[in-house]
Amino acid sequence: MHQFSCQRRVEFSDTDMGGIVHFARFFVFMETTEHEFIRSLGSSVHREVDGKKIGWPRVAASCDYEAPARFGDVLDIHLRVVRKGVKSMTYGFDFRRGDTLIARGTLTAACCELDPKTGMRAIPIPSVIADLIEETPED
Amino acid sequence: MHQFSCQRRVEFSDTDMGGIVHFARFFVFMETTEHEFIRSLGSSVHREVDGKKIGWPRVAASCDYEAPARFGDVLDIHLRVVRKGVKSMTYGFDFRRGDTLIARGTLTAACCELDPKTGMRAIPIPSVIADLIEETPED
Amino acid sequence: MHQFSCQRRVEFSDTDMGGIVHFARFFVFMETTEHEFIRSLGSSVHREVDGKKIGWPRVAASCDYEAPARFGDVLDIHLRVVRKGVKSMTYGFDFRRGDTLIARGTLTAACCELDPKTGMRAIPIPSVIADLIEETPED
Amino acid sequence: MHQFSCQRRVEFSDTDMGGIVHFARFFVFMETTEHEFIRSLGSSVHREVDGKKIGWPRVAASCDYEAPARFGDVLDIHLRVVRKGVKSMTYGFDFRRGDTLIARGTLTAACCELDPKTGMRAIPIPSVIADLIEETPED
Repeated sequence: MHQFSCQRRVEFSDTDMGGIVHFARFFVFMETTEHEFIRSLGSSVHREVDGKKIGWPRVAASCDYEAPARFGDVLDIHLRVVRKGVKSMTYGFDFRRGDTLIARGTLTAACCELDPKTGMRAIPIPSVIADLIEETPED
Repeated sequence: MHQFSCQRRVEFSDTDMGGIVHFARFFVFMETTEHEFIRSLGSSVHREVDGKKIGWPRVAASCDYEAPARFGDVLDIHLRVVRKGVKSMTYGFDFRRGDTLIARGTLTAACCELDPKTGMRAIPIPSVIADLIEETPED
Repeated sequence: MHQFSCQRRVEFSDTDMGGIVHFARFFVFMETTEHEFIRSLGSSVHREVDGKKIGWPRVAASCDYEAPARFGDVLDIHLRVVRKGVKSMTYGFDFRRGDTLIARGTLTAACCELDPKTGMRAIPIPSVIADLIEETPED
Repeated sequence: MHQFSCQRRVEFSDTDMGGIVHFARFFVFMETTEHEFIRSLGSSVHREVDGKKIGWPRVAASCDYEAPARFGDVLDIHLRVVRKGVKSMTYGFDFRRGDTLIARGTLTAACCELDPKTGMRAIPIPSVIADLIEETPED
């Protein structure tokens, strides 16, 4: 799979006193979309592989804001796989309300083994996960 | 110790489209004040006692809202120890901006041993913590 | 209408380092459920009635926590109308995961006219809204 | 002024089940630092200039994560003015815990006139604000 779409309605607590969605919330929206994508593949962002706890700490995130989103808006969120690396994934996101582009963002996450004692260590994405994901072909 | 005071400036992200602090944020403000109180005693809400990991999951929380707080406001937050139980603590909080009462809240937390395998189990508050805390005398 | 149910999946950002849903998030969940309830009646929490902007600032909120909720859990949220006052509404909420009771909460909101100059003023709930809502009969 | 520094202690609610600060929180930390910078100049991000309400909606934001931050950590946050445009500002941020670089980010905000009826419109930064700010010289 190389793309995924979902919808999300803007909640009251997503807004700020400017009357629009607070810019930091888009990063939460991206993350949840990433997780829904992984879930749609039958996997989970938090799982064990060969007895090792796997997690995906974030390496980089960015967002460009094109138009404000407001309380009650239903956002169409589109995820595409920008890059499938050996140890990391980069996703791209578009947020639209109808025909209006609201924002575009990216998220890069590293595949890590989580050890309660030694902390996090980047590892190659296990094939049981990597095999489910393909890069989105360029147009 | 049986009381504690601190200040907190309202941030932009604390507000909602109503132009005031979102009501759920007061619970975060209470929790952080509780943690500052524990820190002021030289302890921490997350620590080990006799090799056991101790945590304080919340049992109950409430807040009454008297007046709105706005971006940039400096809130005076006052904590008092309402009840020191064998296995739990109840704190009371007042939020004021100058002479104006903004909100009053309560928070009850249970002292638990955290075990990665068996989960959380309520335990008597270890004396190294309990001995530092007293109930606030009634006026 | 006097009750309403919906589901919500716990997101990663709802959790804290204790590995469970942060207690303050339940207040956001309650608010969004309240708004979905109002939306299900064909109304909105932010609307104009007779040229006046109506809002529902919170007067009181409380929550009792029975069991932890975790990332990926699907919560069944049930709203009931505890009290329909002249100028305020009180809702009660149950959060369950399957048969497990996770939390119970209440939310009281005052019906207010919002004036950019004079601020908020409690008013009787307009009949176009009040007529849609009934108190939940006691069992 | 072309730079500004402040400190912030990581709160419990800033963390997620991974045991570290949730990546989206860094954007809130950046915004609050920007606001403290503007406040340190004797101005405010929300003010009126010549009877017009001025606001700073975000145009772009990004963050690179170098090392995890944890509950209780005191972060040193450094802001520098990367670019002072005619209608926008770009800030750069470093987050450090002692000598450890935690994250680097950027934030671009457009100066807008806020009109309750016509919405937001980008305008040249009023000189009462622009005159207080300089770009940080490159090393």
